[in-house]
Amino acid sequence: MTTADEQRRILDAVEAHFDDQIATTIKFASIPSTRGAEAPCQDMFGDLLRARGYEVDDWHIDVNDLRELRDYGPVETDFSKARTVVGTYRPAEAKGRSLILQGHCDVVPAGPLDMWTSPPFSPEIRDGHLYGRGAGDMKSGTIAALYALDAIRHAGLRPAARIHLQSVIEEESTGLGALSTIQRGYRADACLIPEPTDGHLVRAQVGVIWFRIKVRGRPAHVFEAGVGANAIKAATYLIGALEGLEADWNARAASHRHFKDVNHPLNFNPGIIKGGDWASSVPAWCDVDCRIAILPGWKLSDCQKEIVACIEAAARKHPFLANNPPQVEWSGFMSEGFELADGTDAESVLRQSYETVYGGRLEEWSFTAITDTRYYAHQGIPCLCFGATAQRMHGFDECVELDSLKKTTRAIALFVVDWCGVEKA
Amino acid sequence: MTTADEQRRILDAVEAHFDDQIATTIKFASIPSTRGAEAPCQDMFGDLLRARGYEVDDWHIDVNDLRELRDYGPVETDFSKARTVVGTYRPAEAKGRSLILQGHCDVVPAGPLDMWTSPPFSPEIRDGHLYGRGAGDMKSGTIAALYALDAIRHAGLRPAARIHLQSVIEEESTGLGALSTIQRGYRADACLIPEPTDGHLVRAQVGVIWFRIKVRGRPAHVFEAGVGANAIKAATYLIGALEGLEADWNARAASHRHFKDVNHPLNFNPGIIKGGDWASSVPAWCDVDCRIAILPGWKLSDCQKEIVACIEAAARKHPFLANNPPQVEWSGFMSEGFELADGTDAESVLRQSYETVYGGRLEEWSFTAITDTRYYAHQGIPCLCFGATAQRMHGFDECVELDSLKKTTRAIALFVVDWCGVEKA
Repeated sequence: MTTADEQRRILDAVEAHFDDQIATTIKFASIPSTRGAEAPCQDMFGDLLRARGYEVDDWHIDVNDLRELRDYGPVETDFSKARTVVGTYRPAEAKGRSLILQGHCDVVPAGPLDMWTSPPFSPEIRDGHLYGRGAGDMKSGTIAALYALDAIRHAGLRPAARIHLQSVIEEESTGLGALSTIQRGYRADACLIPEPTDGHLVRAQVGVIWFRIKVRGRPAHVFEAGVGANAIKAATYLIGALEGLEADWNARAASHRHFKDVNHPLNFNPGIIKGGDWASSVPAWCDVDCRIAILPGWKLSDCQKEIVACIEAAARKHPFLANNPPQVEWSGFMSEGFELADGTDAESVLRQSYETVYGGRLEEWSFTAITDTRYYAHQGIPCLCFGATAQRMHGFDECVELDSLKKTTRAIALFVVDWCGVEKA
Repeated sequence: MTTADEQRRILDAVEAHFDDQIATTIKFASIPSTRGAEAPCQDMFGDLLRARGYEVDDWHIDVNDLRELRDYGPVETDFSKARTVVGTYRPAEAKGRSLILQGHCDVVPAGPLDMWTSPPFSPEIRDGHLYGRGAGDMKSGTIAALYALDAIRHAGLRPAARIHLQSVIEEESTGLGALSTIQRGYRADACLIPEPTDGHLVRAQVGVIWFRIKVRGRPAHVFEAGVGANAIKAATYLIGALEGLEADWNARAASHRHFKDVNHPLNFNPGIIKGGDWASSVPAWCDVDCRIAILPGWKLSDCQKEIVACIEAAARKHPFLANNPPQVEWSGFMSEGFELADGTDAESVLRQSYETVYGGRLEEWSFTAITDTRYYAHQGIPCLCFGATAQRMHGFDECVELDSLKKTTRAIALFVVDWCGVEKA
């Protein structure tokens, strides 16, 4: 255990360097690291690690190494630039418990720019919040982990166990970045992922499946609209059918230990639609990219079967689709849910750090979105997901609340020293 | 009136040169003259006209010349390459009635190539049909008009009146090509447009309006799907509302002189849909490009008001759209319907030519799609729309039946000599 004085020095060090932390966060969040364009973020994070003396492992991911692993999600994009960056700290003599601190640097698309108050990749502070795509989800978290370790050093201390500071990609689409660290062999006694959890601890989390519905038909001149089946209308009919499946699944969630009190935890989202080529031609094709959530404990293969069965049953009742069965493609996430086991030492230590910083009890969350926690759970590694307060993740004017970010940084720093132990620098 | 011998020579000349006509049609149809890419077709048609000694007028269209004209449809594409080509024949002494023969060389997009039996722009003859995008609609018709005039020459005759052979663009989107010939001053005592009417005469034709529904919303992470309204779902809700308007309008069509016996003449078609950027983000936007037909006699401004009122009324009942009203953009066709007046001399002459070639009575059509006829009707010029048998216009494996094309060519040739009169070559 750290002394009260050591804690005070660490907390003061976070305060003293917080402006610098924000400046680094702004630089990190100003990189438009959407899918496939994460390289400059990984370069920057590698430089930050090297400047601090971490041993850096920076590698290109080979999808073929991952295909057979649990929770592999199919990747459809160019993966030739996909990299993972891990910085490792090793104490002179490993005494404490090792730790992985992980963040993802990929961000979702910004959407129409004119709906942002300030440009998504020109991060801006207003009223105590930092605005920008990825400011909340989760570039501020990754940089917070880095500065939490800095604060320990500034306090004249050094962790007494191995620490891996990991920056991954694909958290928003397949999870392959986190999976690549598992494949490469990175392990520790605990993992902490500083996603923006509004100061909560993620106790449970849904799984997510991505799929694409592809409707193909015989187009025709609109003057013979009865002949040419309208693929757009057929696709929207299938969206309606999947809303039925969504309702079924949410009904089942009503008896789940962690989700019974959550309103509509399993969201189905038709997220991208594209169809047709000409206003006066009956559209021959329509593709809908969908996301649906599943409960922890549900088998992916069972859920896939239910999705296909739902679409097939609906198609059989549809005059056009019955003869032109839609196709289903698995287009990304293929991820189980997650539950943090009760009563781990890692959780106890985080609870203590939290109380010191926040002055109250760490509340739990059953989270209706996905994070990379599942990959650690599969390895039997307790994975704590805990972080700052963000708003409008994936939306316009995404932001992180700076005061909550400072608290998060402090709580992470105290957690690190209490989990890993310290030695004098 | 032409003599039976002159008629025989003309009909024989069509036969003698039909292989060459098909070869020219194949060359014309092999040019992928989708919107904005019509220039090579116009070049080829200009060359065909010049080789035959027509006086050629080939000009770039200035949209500003057209904006205030009746049935102008707004154009959203690059129009810098838009051209019209008119070839004019002038007899030594004008004695007969002048004529415009018009075809359009623009074609609609081919759609997914893998759904074609043979590539859309590599026209191919199978079982007496010529397959390819535009083979039916309407490159074979334009070339048929050209070869009909050739046949008269091959028969040792010359028309006794002025003839304009016109190749226009934009027939599939705004009508601005035909409108540009009106603006430039081309007029005649009659017009014939050899669209593929399956050997029928178009007595009446719907009008068409193109519009785009634009839904914009506040996107959000799908985990808070209730907060972020799904623009795709909102757009499909509006499609449903417009199907209600379509039903209303078809009910009104039940009492229309020319459309009361036509099943569902006024088709609403959501033809292109695009929305959303990410499967796991609630989509912030969705655009739907739509086409709807109106009856001859309906005022465009009234129809526009009804479309807007339908969308606004639906939006007011929708929890999200009520606060985020969708926009409506007029995106192309803004075209009244058309009726061919009964009892014109032009029709009588065509009926006679038809009977000579086909051996039966020319049947009438109330057509549920659009052609360029309306622009001539507005000028008080009788406009006959009559042509070959085509299948799957705007669809995959579009084709024209070659025997019907030969008959059409013959009927046009006889119509020309009987309408314009002849002199010895």
